Amino acid sequence: MTLVLLRHGESLWNQENLFTGWTDVELSEKGQKEARQAGRLLKEEGYDFDCCYTSYLKRAIHTLNFALGEMDRDWLPVTKTWKLNERHYGALQGLNKADTAEKYGEEQVKIWRRSFDVQPPALAPDDKRCPALQEMYRNVDPKELPLAESLKDTIARVVPYFESEILPQLQSGKRVLIAAHGNSLRALIMHLEKLTPDEILTRNLPTGVPLVYHLSEDLQILSSKYLGDEAAIQAKIQAVANQGKKQ
Amino acid sequence: MTLVLLRHGESLWNQENLFTGWTDVELSEKGQKEARQAGRLLKEEGYDFDCCYTSYLKRAIHTLNFALGEMDRDWLPVTKTWKLNERHYGALQGLNKADTAEKYGEEQVKIWRRSFDVQPPALAPDDKRCPALQEMYRNVDPKELPLAESLKDTIARVVPYFESEILPQLQSGKRVLIAAHGNSLRALIMHLEKLTPDEILTRNLPTGVPLVYHLSEDLQILSSKYLGDEAAIQAKIQAVANQGKKQ
Repeated sequence: MTLVLLRHGESLWNQENLFTGWTDVELSEKGQKEARQAGRLLKEEGYDFDCCYTSYLKRAIHTLNFALGEMDRDWLPVTKTWKLNERHYGALQGLNKADTAEKYGEEQVKIWRRSFDVQPPALAPDDKRCPALQEMYRNVDPKELPLAESLKDTIARVVPYFESEILPQLQSGKRVLIAAHGNSLRALIMHLEKLTPDEILTRNLPTGVPLVYHLSEDLQILSSKYLGDEAAIQAKIQAVANQGKKQ
Repeated sequence: MTLVLLRHGESLWNQENLFTGWTDVELSEKGQKEARQAGRLLKEEGYDFDCCYTSYLKRAIHTLNFALGEMDRDWLPVTKTWKLNERHYGALQGLNKADTAEKYGEEQVKIWRRSFDVQPPALAPDDKRCPALQEMYRNVDPKELPLAESLKDTIARVVPYFESEILPQLQSGKRVLIAAHGNSLRALIMHLEKLTPDEILTRNLPTGVPLVYHLSEDLQILSSKYLGDEAAIQAKIQAVANQGKKQ
């Protein structure tokens, strides 16, 4: 079974050092370039797919569209689901690191960012950023929609979706490409690689680099690798880790 | 029931005066602009959708993507189907008007272009342009795939698809947007408006202009209109008609 995970390229809010979460921000020019490069790499290395999954957020959808365009695979079926959205960052969404530290204190911010199961402050139910108040989620039961999420919460929505919707596709022999987000993909990686909370918290995923898994039918990893230049990938992983520190 | 039809914007081969058919050609810059403009119009006029349909061809898929982007509806579900592809132009695909007239004679070309049920010359089964030899159609029964189509043949694949897949969505209250091609949309228009072959042959569809139908449950037309500036639309319709004459 072949499964490829692709984290979206840089977004406009990455550039501005803001907490993004479910905020529906566009890719930056650099992010578009990263997405196209991912598609070129997949094509050059001979990868092909039968179906694709992405989130409801345009930075992931556009990453997938750009990659499919480079692969000449625009016509592949794409399923969009909010279950693959980024971790919901609650009331931190739209704040930058300086604002956040000022408002809640440096120590507290560190806990929200680094802990496995502590949620950031939740949105008030009448906050216009609430998913339940947005058109995008009008077909989702509001009780299912978060006001804030820990990484553990994100895992609790991503993994059941993977098991019920994506795994059966893989098991029927379909090659699957998932374009999503740092934390929704970390949820999947934790599940696939059977990582502990400590292990997943220190795992940084480079943007726009395809991560290829070959899996047995009972979901044992036969091989896994990033596509592309090793040094460039390591530099990207380091950049993500450092960005975490600075924020 | 609300159904909106959108013909893709100008493609690179429109510019070069080539028969396109199922050739998978990109939108031109102008075509991208037309697609975005269609999305802006739909948004300004307050239209919204629950699901979208498009063909397997990138000029239609990208038109839909650009329009959804302008509407901030990137997250809407999109179904891609070869049944909404353009009329298959057989061995004429890739030829320009001058080549075609030289090879087959002016009179014959006129018949292929203007008749309802005469097919253009078919592709040879080993022609690399044959759909059955292309990755894009690898999941379609080769016996279903055409080597050439008359408008009548196009109607014979588009209308049953509409009735079995799209009409039930409309009847369940969903608002549907279809981004497709001059002839696959003419097939739908003929069906919806109950036109004769003569009537549909003289009906020219402007590129990138949303055509809005409000329908009763038994598919009677309650209203239909193009969105946008009336004079600009008439100019576009005339341009399509003239392009037909020149080719």
